[in-house]
Amino acid sequence: MSDSRATTTPSRHKERANWDDDVINAILDEALIGHLAFVDRDRPQILPLLFVRVGRSVFLHGSTGARFSRLVKGGHRLPVSFEVTLVDGLVLARSAFSHSANYRCVIAHGDALLVADDDRKREVLEALMDKLVPGRLADARPPRRDELRQTSILELPLTEVAAKVRTGDPLDDKADLALPVWAGVRPLRTGWGTAVPSGDLASRIALPGYLENGDHDAVGVPGAMTA
Amino acid sequence: MSDSRATTTPSRHKERANWDDDVINAILDEALIGHLAFVDRDRPQILPLLFVRVGRSVFLHGSTGARFSRLVKGGHRLPVSFEVTLVDGLVLARSAFSHSANYRCVIAHGDALLVADDDRKREVLEALMDKLVPGRLADARPPRRDELRQTSILELPLTEVAAKVRTGDPLDDKADLALPVWAGVRPLRTGWGTAVPSGDLASRIALPGYLENGDHDAVGVPGAMTA
Repeated sequence: MSDSRATTTPSRHKERANWDDDVINAILDEALIGHLAFVDRDRPQILPLLFVRVGRSVFLHGSTGARFSRLVKGGHRLPVSFEVTLVDGLVLARSAFSHSANYRCVIAHGDALLVADDDRKREVLEALMDKLVPGRLADARPPRRDELRQTSILELPLTEVAAKVRTGDPLDDKADLALPVWAGVRPLRTGWGTAVPSGDLASRIALPGYLENGDHDAVGVPGAMTA
Repeated sequence: MSDSRATTTPSRHKERANWDDDVINAILDEALIGHLAFVDRDRPQILPLLFVRVGRSVFLHGSTGARFSRLVKGGHRLPVSFEVTLVDGLVLARSAFSHSANYRCVIAHGDALLVADDDRKREVLEALMDKLVPGRLADARPPRRDELRQTSILELPLTEVAAKVRTGDPLDDKADLALPVWAGVRPLRTGWGTAVPSGDLASRIALPGYLENGDHDAVGVPGAMTA
């Protein structure tokens, strides 16, 4: 995925840029939502969307009523930017200026297009479910043909893509190191809470094993702390 | 902030739209990062940025080397979309199609401009610090004039802005309610982990009280679970 660094090299902190497929994929596979930017009537637009990476594409989940769906009707290719960011912590330096955040970010540029084929749509939706709630696929009623038709899936091939990652300690100016100010990292953690049954769920239906992660259990979940 | 619903009414799930200032402000004040979309050389661009709301504007924190900073040099107004999303949980329905997410999102459109005045920049940076780490302002060394000059703050007045919020149970089709499938919400929680001192921190410098939130403490922090 490293064939166009000209458009993916960040203008700031170039040393944080990373074109390693494994790094890029790990970020995309951990994040629940991504942010899609496109231009509509000369104005920038932005949307948060659930998505899944399959191979060298990301697939964004929308509906046929969504604005971006209208722009890609009939096979039109839509120039987009797509961004995913996981914030791992705040970086507290001695000086206000050197405060920062630890994060893992992916930004991709390219032309997005609608997935037209029903079988391909089904595959992508299964991959999305498998990413969001591993194990759920065996339980949920699969989509009917009319439901598939109401779902629009946008594919963005990952050709121009880079990660940007900051980790570790604050980087204070040498002159500030002697200041009597605490410095370090305040980690941010994301994890699943205890699953809450729907009000209309029959009491005989037990919680499935794949949802049994306890309160605050962050093992193997999207957004789990990596530090 | 409710004067232009034409551009802020979502094309999907209009019933989730909300123009209440308190709802909008609460989302903006809880989120650590926002996502900025703009157009550069006819192509959509997107960036994650730390930000703070002050009154009826959001202020985005960047550097003078950042791409968006170049586009607003000399007082130019840059058309942007700005988006903030907090994911509160995944919504597991009986049917795959009715799966959803509980989330709180704000999308704003408008023209962003550089904050030129040093005093105003200082005020905004203090508000940002106060939002990210309440209490920190009294400790950190304030920015020098040369540091202020390297910081670029973009202001986006909140004139065209709306929230979009989904809460609560899955909404299955009536015909699916009898399926023997667990349904409900899997909450997502975000909270601070235990603060980690910098490798170069003198051992005599104790952890400040404002960082003493214990492991997984989510009280009063950005991203705290609201369910």
